[in-house]
Amino acid sequence: MNNKPCIALVTCLSAFLAISFPVFAADNEPGKTVKQLQADALVSDLAWDTLASLTSEVGPRMGGSDGDLLAVDWAVDNMQKLGFDRVWKEPVTFPRWVRNHESAAVMSAEKDGKRIVVQPLAITAIGGSPSSNGTLLAEITEFDSIEALESASNEAVKGKIVFLSTRMRKTHDGAGYGETVSNRSRGPFVAAEKGAAALLIRSVGTDNNRLPHTGMMSGSLQGPRVPSAAISNPDADNLMLLVEKGAPVVVQLDLDVGFDGEATSYNVVGEFNGRDDSGKHILIGAHLDSWDLGTGAVDDGAGVALVMAAAKMVADLPTRPRNATRVVLYANEEQGIYGGKEYARKHAEDLSGFIVGAESDLGADRIYRLKASTLPTAQITIDFLAHHLKALGIVYEADKPAYGGADVGQMRRLGMPAIDLNQDASRYFDLHHTANDTLDKVNPQNLQQNLAAWVTLVFITADSTDTFGPLPVAE
Amino acid sequence: MNNKPCIALVTCLSAFLAISFPVFAADNEPGKTVKQLQADALVSDLAWDTLASLTSEVGPRMGGSDGDLLAVDWAVDNMQKLGFDRVWKEPVTFPRWVRNHESAAVMSAEKDGKRIVVQPLAITAIGGSPSSNGTLLAEITEFDSIEALESASNEAVKGKIVFLSTRMRKTHDGAGYGETVSNRSRGPFVAAEKGAAALLIRSVGTDNNRLPHTGMMSGSLQGPRVPSAAISNPDADNLMLLVEKGAPVVVQLDLDVGFDGEATSYNVVGEFNGRDDSGKHILIGAHLDSWDLGTGAVDDGAGVALVMAAAKMVADLPTRPRNATRVVLYANEEQGIYGGKEYARKHAEDLSGFIVGAESDLGADRIYRLKASTLPTAQITIDFLAHHLKALGIVYEADKPAYGGADVGQMRRLGMPAIDLNQDASRYFDLHHTANDTLDKVNPQNLQQNLAAWVTLVFITADSTDTFGPLPVAE
Repeated sequence: MNNKPCIALVTCLSAFLAISFPVFAADNEPGKTVKQLQADALVSDLAWDTLASLTSEVGPRMGGSDGDLLAVDWAVDNMQKLGFDRVWKEPVTFPRWVRNHESAAVMSAEKDGKRIVVQPLAITAIGGSPSSNGTLLAEITEFDSIEALESASNEAVKGKIVFLSTRMRKTHDGAGYGETVSNRSRGPFVAAEKGAAALLIRSVGTDNNRLPHTGMMSGSLQGPRVPSAAISNPDADNLMLLVEKGAPVVVQLDLDVGFDGEATSYNVVGEFNGRDDSGKHILIGAHLDSWDLGTGAVDDGAGVALVMAAAKMVADLPTRPRNATRVVLYANEEQGIYGGKEYARKHAEDLSGFIVGAESDLGADRIYRLKASTLPTAQITIDFLAHHLKALGIVYEADKPAYGGADVGQMRRLGMPAIDLNQDASRYFDLHHTANDTLDKVNPQNLQQNLAAWVTLVFITADSTDTFGPLPVAE
Repeated sequence: MNNKPCIALVTCLSAFLAISFPVFAADNEPGKTVKQLQADALVSDLAWDTLASLTSEVGPRMGGSDGDLLAVDWAVDNMQKLGFDRVWKEPVTFPRWVRNHESAAVMSAEKDGKRIVVQPLAITAIGGSPSSNGTLLAEITEFDSIEALESASNEAVKGKIVFLSTRMRKTHDGAGYGETVSNRSRGPFVAAEKGAAALLIRSVGTDNNRLPHTGMMSGSLQGPRVPSAAISNPDADNLMLLVEKGAPVVVQLDLDVGFDGEATSYNVVGEFNGRDDSGKHILIGAHLDSWDLGTGAVDDGAGVALVMAAAKMVADLPTRPRNATRVVLYANEEQGIYGGKEYARKHAEDLSGFIVGAESDLGADRIYRLKASTLPTAQITIDFLAHHLKALGIVYEADKPAYGGADVGQMRRLGMPAIDLNQDASRYFDLHHTANDTLDKVNPQNLQQNLAAWVTLVFITADSTDTFGPLPVAE
């Protein structure tokens, strides 16, 4: 017990319970350790070198591809090299989707019974798309939102290539993504319902490069879907110029893609022991797979590198935190959170061993916000964490719940407490799911700021004796 | 004669000769006309609309392609619509080079006698490259400059894929291009001389997108050349990470490209009469062809739109300038200045009819500098021009000669006077010869500033009675 006066309810409450950290007593031992960890992280090359190794030696690693299995080997190998006390793999099985060929072009008007290619379009198939079974030729019909498509008559759409032209807004928190991603997730089904021949969407992305953004269509919707692809923003702009002229715009589309049996990949798990034999561990995660177009540097190589590096730096302290640190690199997040869901299914029974979980999966730009969802009994630890993250320019928003991320969030749904370290997403959707997702887009200083936040989180939560959860679960 | 004192030699000299514009008397009739033209140009949509039409309705127009002939039809049609007094075509013949397929990938180490693709590379063949005749597999040998390659022993290079990794500097005036373009122009020949299997160069470009920069190899060098391609800057960075690890890096390359017979395209010429029947005209030009990867918005659609729009605006004045304005849209500049050379060959005898020439071929960003190469007898006109361009933020550098541009410069070599309106090239080499050369990269306000400068140039030079040339020709 410390002898500071109780100044706030949560502090008093926490002080009454078992406390690991005197709040704001930054010169105590844990506080000193955190400061040293942060200082070391801010000049550490470990996350950068790990990320450079993954992106150059493995590169693209789409779930179910050769690169995916290379990545699994890389992860096991590199966790072992970093000295994790235990490293293991847990199999994850899913439908394999393949991309063999994709092309499209605006065609000329017919002359002597023939059309010639006028403008090749920069396109990429939407994950889960069926094949076009050869070349498909049809007129474009444009809608500026999926709602407008839903309101259209079947006659207006039948046999045509639907073009959804909605542009994504650029925002700090990535809110524009949620506003437009239904074009990709639901569009293929709505277009099929209306009798369309195919779907083209303006990429769900905020850049203006000729590099289309892929991504998965909904895995939970049932029923037919049309061959579907995203075109780059400049191509969408160009198509709009043609559409606005009023003459028919005819497009040729060839998608040789589709599902092809099953594949098995792995959640790769590594654990560093704590100094106590508590049987409890924190969970930090990222997804190991990427899309096939880039090298997955920001999505989610940076997350992989950060959680591996943060766990290693904390484990290398002269005195380890009380509890263990478990790092999970999830399989095939991109095509349906397969790794995250399988992990939660498999470990639902062990829930009490998981102190708290956190995930890094929004690139590598600066972390600006902390959110936490724990029982009030862990508030003193969260306050201590918030106090130390403030030094890194991170603001604690106590009134907002933590989400836990796509993969780790699957355990959050079962009642595991979660902490979010939110990254600035302004640039993220310039790169997201494109060929441009490569190492050169990562700012080394921003990555170090992330690492400093993650070592802070790992050390403070893994060393805490507070009770974080389990949280009540919504029915 | 005006009654201002002679304050500088050139002004006095000009004042002594035939003078069309009293220097700096900005409220005279020509000065008023210029000011009104500039004001109109700064709010005009004409260049933008012309550019949008070319890039959307025609798009890519590589010399000798279907798109090239579409562009010729577009140019004739649009010049006629704009009311040019005469529009005609002059044939230009050249070897046709075609790009059917191009791909490359970093391969895994051999395992059970097989290699798998680890990383597809974003590549594009260098114009003029021969085919690889199927898939070629070889180890990379890296050099940081063409000089380093030249110094290497044949044994170090033989049978390998040479990788020239030199990075282009970003500069205001595009000087970095001249420093690195020899990798592309001479590299294929030097690599062949050393016995290399193929050549990969880091793109001659300043961006970091996964969009490689094409461009032609030298047309004047003789002898064998290897299959050659450019890789994007991020791919080059990635390859460097692998090269620096020291283990052999094996790349698979497939270029189905090459020369295929001859093609005929056209210089498209349009002329507006002057108000006098002087038999003389100014020449303003741009090249109509583009590379095949983008829609040629900045290279050189913007130039095409600017010279067409500037000629039209000046021709629409209540009183036309004294002399005619000739617009030449040149064929196939990209693959060897075929249109410019043919035009100069054909019109060498008419040299005395060309008052002065100017070209727009460095994108669409703001013009910051005026240069002129004329006889001193035209200095008063140049000073008047400089005075009015100053209002647009353009500085006259009297001590620097004008180049005339790649195409118009062919007439400059014969003695035709030239004026350069230099554009800010800082962004130009981010886009140059890539798929990213599209309309969205053009800033409408910058295009209007260009147009304002061009109408100023067209009106003042076409209305002048000064003697501009011919200039002495270097032997």
